[in-house]
Amino acid sequence: MPKILIINGPNLNLLGTRERSVYGDTSLETINRNAIEHGTGLGYEIATFQSNSEGEIVDTIHKASLQYAGVVINPAAYTHTSVAIRDAIAAVDIPFVEVHLSNIHNREEFRRTSLTAPVCVGQISGFGPTSYILGIDALRSIIEKNS
Amino acid sequence: MPKILIINGPNLNLLGTRERSVYGDTSLETINRNAIEHGTGLGYEIATFQSNSEGEIVDTIHKASLQYAGVVINPAAYTHTSVAIRDAIAAVDIPFVEVHLSNIHNREEFRRTSLTAPVCVGQISGFGPTSYILGIDALRSIIEKNS
Amino acid sequence: MPKILIINGPNLNLLGTRERSVYGDTSLETINRNAIEHGTGLGYEIATFQSNSEGEIVDTIHKASLQYAGVVINPAAYTHTSVAIRDAIAAVDIPFVEVHLSNIHNREEFRRTSLTAPVCVGQISGFGPTSYILGIDALRSIIEKNS
Amino acid sequence: MPKILIINGPNLNLLGTRERSVYGDTSLETINRNAIEHGTGLGYEIATFQSNSEGEIVDTIHKASLQYAGVVINPAAYTHTSVAIRDAIAAVDIPFVEVHLSNIHNREEFRRTSLTAPVCVGQISGFGPTSYILGIDALRSIIEKNS
Amino acid sequence: MPKILIINGPNLNLLGTRERSVYGDTSLETINRNAIEHGTGLGYEIATFQSNSEGEIVDTIHKASLQYAGVVINPAAYTHTSVAIRDAIAAVDIPFVEVHLSNIHNREEFRRTSLTAPVCVGQISGFGPTSYILGIDALRSIIEKNS
Amino acid sequence: MPKILIINGPNLNLLGTRERSVYGDTSLETINRNAIEHGTGLGYEIATFQSNSEGEIVDTIHKASLQYAGVVINPAAYTHTSVAIRDAIAAVDIPFVEVHLSNIHNREEFRRTSLTAPVCVGQISGFGPTSYILGIDALRSIIEKNS
Amino acid sequence: MPKILIINGPNLNLLGTRERSVYGDTSLETINRNAIEHGTGLGYEIATFQSNSEGEIVDTIHKASLQYAGVVINPAAYTHTSVAIRDAIAAVDIPFVEVHLSNIHNREEFRRTSLTAPVCVGQISGFGPTSYILGIDALRSIIEKNS
Amino acid sequence: MPKILIINGPNLNLLGTRERSVYGDTSLETINRNAIEHGTGLGYEIATFQSNSEGEIVDTIHKASLQYAGVVINPAAYTHTSVAIRDAIAAVDIPFVEVHLSNIHNREEFRRTSLTAPVCVGQISGFGPTSYILGIDALRSIIEKNS
Amino acid sequence: MPKILIINGPNLNLLGTRERSVYGDTSLETINRNAIEHGTGLGYEIATFQSNSEGEIVDTIHKASLQYAGVVINPAAYTHTSVAIRDAIAAVDIPFVEVHLSNIHNREEFRRTSLTAPVCVGQISGFGPTSYILGIDALRSIIEKNS
Amino acid sequence: MPKILIINGPNLNLLGTRERSVYGDTSLETINRNAIEHGTGLGYEIATFQSNSEGEIVDTIHKASLQYAGVVINPAAYTHTSVAIRDAIAAVDIPFVEVHLSNIHNREEFRRTSLTAPVCVGQISGFGPTSYILGIDALRSIIEKNS
Amino acid sequence: MPKILIINGPNLNLLGTRERSVYGDTSLETINRNAIEHGTGLGYEIATFQSNSEGEIVDTIHKASLQYAGVVINPAAYTHTSVAIRDAIAAVDIPFVEVHLSNIHNREEFRRTSLTAPVCVGQISGFGPTSYILGIDALRSIIEKNS
Amino acid sequence: MPKILIINGPNLNLLGTRERSVYGDTSLETINRNAIEHGTGLGYEIATFQSNSEGEIVDTIHKASLQYAGVVINPAAYTHTSVAIRDAIAAVDIPFVEVHLSNIHNREEFRRTSLTAPVCVGQISGFGPTSYILGIDALRSIIEKNS
Repeated sequence: MPKILIINGPNLNLLGTRERSVYGDTSLETINRNAIEHGTGLGYEIATFQSNSEGEIVDTIHKASLQYAGVVINPAAYTHTSVAIRDAIAAVDIPFVEVHLSNIHNREEFRRTSLTAPVCVGQISGFGPTSYILGIDALRSIIEKNS
Repeated sequence: MPKILIINGPNLNLLGTRERSVYGDTSLETINRNAIEHGTGLGYEIATFQSNSEGEIVDTIHKASLQYAGVVINPAAYTHTSVAIRDAIAAVDIPFVEVHLSNIHNREEFRRTSLTAPVCVGQISGFGPTSYILGIDALRSIIEKNS
Repeated sequence: MPKILIINGPNLNLLGTRERSVYGDTSLETINRNAIEHGTGLGYEIATFQSNSEGEIVDTIHKASLQYAGVVINPAAYTHTSVAIRDAIAAVDIPFVEVHLSNIHNREEFRRTSLTAPVCVGQISGFGPTSYILGIDALRSIIEKNS
Repeated sequence: MPKILIINGPNLNLLGTRERSVYGDTSLETINRNAIEHGTGLGYEIATFQSNSEGEIVDTIHKASLQYAGVVINPAAYTHTSVAIRDAIAAVDIPFVEVHLSNIHNREEFRRTSLTAPVCVGQISGFGPTSYILGIDALRSIIEKNS
Repeated sequence: MPKILIINGPNLNLLGTRERSVYGDTSLETINRNAIEHGTGLGYEIATFQSNSEGEIVDTIHKASLQYAGVVINPAAYTHTSVAIRDAIAAVDIPFVEVHLSNIHNREEFRRTSLTAPVCVGQISGFGPTSYILGIDALRSIIEKNS
Repeated sequence: MPKILIINGPNLNLLGTRERSVYGDTSLETINRNAIEHGTGLGYEIATFQSNSEGEIVDTIHKASLQYAGVVINPAAYTHTSVAIRDAIAAVDIPFVEVHLSNIHNREEFRRTSLTAPVCVGQISGFGPTSYILGIDALRSIIEKNS
Repeated sequence: MPKILIINGPNLNLLGTRERSVYGDTSLETINRNAIEHGTGLGYEIATFQSNSEGEIVDTIHKASLQYAGVVINPAAYTHTSVAIRDAIAAVDIPFVEVHLSNIHNREEFRRTSLTAPVCVGQISGFGPTSYILGIDALRSIIEKNS
Repeated sequence: MPKILIINGPNLNLLGTRERSVYGDTSLETINRNAIEHGTGLGYEIATFQSNSEGEIVDTIHKASLQYAGVVINPAAYTHTSVAIRDAIAAVDIPFVEVHLSNIHNREEFRRTSLTAPVCVGQISGFGPTSYILGIDALRSIIEKNS
Repeated sequence: MPKILIINGPNLNLLGTRERSVYGDTSLETINRNAIEHGTGLGYEIATFQSNSEGEIVDTIHKASLQYAGVVINPAAYTHTSVAIRDAIAAVDIPFVEVHLSNIHNREEFRRTSLTAPVCVGQISGFGPTSYILGIDALRSIIEKNS
Repeated sequence: MPKILIINGPNLNLLGTRERSVYGDTSLETINRNAIEHGTGLGYEIATFQSNSEGEIVDTIHKASLQYAGVVINPAAYTHTSVAIRDAIAAVDIPFVEVHLSNIHNREEFRRTSLTAPVCVGQISGFGPTSYILGIDALRSIIEKNS
Repeated sequence: MPKILIINGPNLNLLGTRERSVYGDTSLETINRNAIEHGTGLGYEIATFQSNSEGEIVDTIHKASLQYAGVVINPAAYTHTSVAIRDAIAAVDIPFVEVHLSNIHNREEFRRTSLTAPVCVGQISGFGPTSYILGIDALRSIIEKNS
Repeated sequence: MPKILIINGPNLNLLGTRERSVYGDTSLETINRNAIEHGTGLGYEIATFQSNSEGEIVDTIHKASLQYAGVVINPAAYTHTSVAIRDAIAAVDIPFVEVHLSNIHNREEFRRTSLTAPVCVGQISGFGPTSYILGIDALRSIIEKNS
């Protein structure tokens, strides 16, 4: 059974408690549970990881290529500031799909640029928790096309 | 049976013949046929429209709100230049999902800014023809959440 | 009886139905009817034209110089993107007055620059439907000063 | 009889003597006289004020809200440099209409941005002395709509 | 007998009547007639097309590749604003030569950037109607080198 | 008994009446009274000055160095536009502390840059009337460290 | 007894040893000791935290809202680069006051912009160790006004 | 005996007391005395004026054209911020020479742009009090060439 | 027999040996020989000059006006950096035509701006050695129109 | 025997496996081994450290000054984003030499700016693993010049 | 008898023949002759040098410090592009005065920045040939103050 | 015995006499002598060249490829302004190493960009005369790897 990793960046552990008007009120646990269920239905094993630390996310990306067929990543704040995560994604040879809960094109100017999207296969933003479900579907289509 | 409209902007009629290294080699007919099939499977009637004219796309958006539950739009070149299409989307009260075949974050500088994305619910880019399938799925989740 | 043409750009056909907090709730028909009435009172025949297509607006400007003493134009979204309409206005030798319903200086950054205003005699923005009435008055003062 | 104040900013006292190719050759006295006459005809009492000092204009704006139903202001050079006048206009609760003799969109780059227009109801520029007449008309329509 | 298409963009139908100090006083008919004559002398059949509509120009470019050996295009105002025409040129596999009557490097700032030139073989600007003659010669040298 | 001067810039005389959602509803009289009381409690005599005129504020700064041990200044709108006030502060040899009622980092772009802060000892912004109390405390710590 | 947390960002552990001409020669221990003493005098318990890691600071902010009435934060270098810390501050519902030892408006260009200040109540910069004392006072006034 | 006016802008009354490393230690009185002496030697009567107020400088410029053959102006801080003084200089028809004590090209970025120099005949900067002597000489050569 | 000078700027002496994928593999000798032959066929004597030195090119331009009816210039690298060559072209009263082998609109950003093109009659770029032939033809049409 | 520390930033642990066309195929172990050997030959003890975490690199820099005579640092992605590492380098009093495997001037725009280089003695970039050898040599010359 | 060198940059050898509306119609010979006469009257020997070559001007500056007490330089086009001349001026220890015939603040945008002025004592621009006379006077005042 | 050329750009002939605080006090002769000695020790013959003329440096680069195995170049001021030298380096097929005495990342903004570095193998800056020694070492490693 092929495996997919979901990486969540800084502050996403607070989902459902934080600025609900922007991010909705689903908790990260619920998002993860729905993703696991959705993935299992498609024949994929889903693992999840969250960290507020740029370095830990880089470490996790390095290790991912050994165990996972692909990664769905929501780099959150690091989307806009982390060349290190960008370089890590570019360095490993499995596909990444970038997802965002909110529509980043519709927020502050500094959130409209993504340092990480150019090294992912594609980006999905604005659909709330559904962005993760679509991210898994997108990743599956890439994995299956490649194999 | 609720209806979804797929709007394709300029030059997309050439898909499959044009710059294949960037856009892949699936024709627009194939994309449309797959979308209709996918939509029907989900209980939606799918209509499609393509035009190279900004004004015709604005006209079509105006009329869409009377017949469709939502729109999947690939504004192509007009993504980056058309305030008129942006204003048309903002003016009608059905949800729009913006899709792109290629990863716009990974192309020329002037293709990284989207004038239309801020008035859509969200944006999906980079997954080739799969972007349309994901766009229909995204739109369905919005339509069903609203109703 | 001298004639004045009122040209309305993209999406203005939706007036009264669209984003009312920004544009108010008067329909384009009402605006046109009031303009005709106001013009007639001043001894002018008023014709009106609306299009969502940049090319049709250019065509209309070309023809206007043969029949009209001047034009009141609300280029709407094309104000900010159309060099073609700018060139058309510069090419014909009757006076143009640019009008806007909303105060463009008080909206998104990209709406604060007008490509068309430098080739019009002047610009009036922010007074809702009254902008058109003022536009006719301004045009009349120019026409009568020139003759 | 409701009252309207016309505020003229720096150097406008020289009108008719100064750079006539840009500003025309009507003096400020003539403009004021015509405005008073036009206002009286509409049932408004018109007062006028001119100063070259940013601080005096701020003081005058503060006092205006006690006696006037609205203000027509030509901030001249301060249009482009005065945050203080902008803040003063925003602070008082009567409507302001910004007017300019010349078409500011058609002059030096630094004259195309108005710091004051975003806090006025609207802006009229380019019609020579007629800009003031249109400004009074615009203000009247706002005053009468509000009351 | 190989065929060449000449595409003229917005407002060029007014040539000879419009801002003569910038564009000279030769009409488009004369330019076309001279081009046909010059082309015939070289053994090429010359067809001409003019439109003020971005969408129609895109449509024409699409169809051109089926009938013509190459295109001389003066995109006029769309040179500076149309990603759609750029994409259309890039999508078809016949050579394009961009021509301009006036020297675009010597006009307003916004006319110095060409969105379309990078996807043409080259650009010729500033020689008045002669630009078209040079454009045909340039195109011939490309067509004959390729064949 | 050492003396401290509080200088208030343009429009601050309207405090408590003006845009209350931004500036709160305490009047300048109340702020001054509280500052005098707070200063007296610390053994300082507090004088206050307000002007809407850039020139008068420059004059006041010049004279301040003869009578005062330091100045708490809220330059208001002139914070962002006055090189003259900046030069005046730099020219006199007593310490200045810049204060703002609102958090200037959280307002319009043009309010985020301070021309005057670089020549003050420091800046305090965002605490409403408490900013002045903190400003006096900050100034006291500087005066007492220097003496 | 209500509790306040003081968070110090990267390199502040070196205070008193590092670039003394910029930061003065008080050590972080002394600053903390003085803050605790000052806070105790006001009836507040003061806790302190320092880390060079962006992720640990984010973690600490998340936990802070459960135990503290407010936070005084000197994000040091992260002030200018960390969207993650900005998002963390925005996500928790206790007040933050940003403090800086040096006057950030008077240093390198890249230090004049604060990503974190817009989500704090206010900012105090330039008063050396006194900035922390003023920060505690500012926080106290907010806490007591809210309760 | 023809007359020349020397206008000094804000803070120049402090010369000789202020930031001596930048401006030198000659007082304004000494500069004026030397200028009068130098002018008298050349057969010109020299008058001097200093103000910290932008409005008063504008007023003085307006009146100057009635009594003076030309003006030497050091607008100081207003060099970089005053469109009003620029417009005043442009409006009167006597020649202006701009002078600066320090070399403005060698100071902060914002001091390198002069709003007023383009409407003066020329600019002299960097020679300390000698700049005024050179300014009078320059003005004399213009006055005598014109007459 | 009228004379035309061809000026070639820095590094063009290496043509045919240098970066062939960009500049093609025709040597400068071949280009010159073809130009001379083409010119002779049209009744013009063609002289050629190449230098890597900006100063020598300026000197050559100065002398050119005495002997030549016009100049075809490929300023190569100096196109983008030399105000001196621009001023030299503007100073002499014979026509210049700028040519480039490669399409400068399709290369690095810094090669898209031409300092020299605005003072030439026009520019031809992107046709390889044919650019020179077209340049001679363009120059001939100007010379013959003027005479 | 004096000691030198080599610090390697994020993703460099993947050297030899990652994007070989950019970084070559030498592993970090090989680079370290060669550096140790080279250093030993020069009479220096070489220690090495790698981390993907910005905070850990800051911590390591702090401790380095107690044990090492100097540091060779390749901050990798943090070169372009970390003010914290810059401040750490500036805060300790041993010399740093910045090295890069690839030529950073020849890559994406955002990699051309180094936040850390200005506080290092110098920078060496583009020589692959040899950059480290040169870095040790450069550091040795500084250490020996200082002692 | 102390010596002063006058250096003239590119194209100034054409003075009196070139663009007279900008530069006037005095030839360089006349300017030099007047300067020599003026200098002699003040007890200075004046030498003159003109070159169109950046490198020759750098060479001349290097040698100047051995024979001359100071230099009046009009770098013409190199004012705006030559870091080499800037560095040469900064490297020699005699005073330089920059002069310009035209008012550079009143011309094209790219002529408003001077790379060389910051390393000269001061700049004089806009007074035609009189700029050189003023430049000699300015230089004399510096030389005599220093000695 | 393979040969290496060292090219020194403008003003470097003054080394040891010029701005010593920036460039140190070693003369160019000493640097050259040390380089020759160092090269000889490594089995390379070292030649040196210095010029203040951009054109001569371009000429020298052209000839270098015939006699030298590689070049160490310090383009000095031309680093930041010369596209011609950049093109010359790109045109010849021997390796170039760029060196700088001072740390260019730590000087004026305009010195931080290198036009020439992207076409060199790499860049070494900040180590004073040692930069040249390191440059020779770097070049040797490239020459020996290639052969």
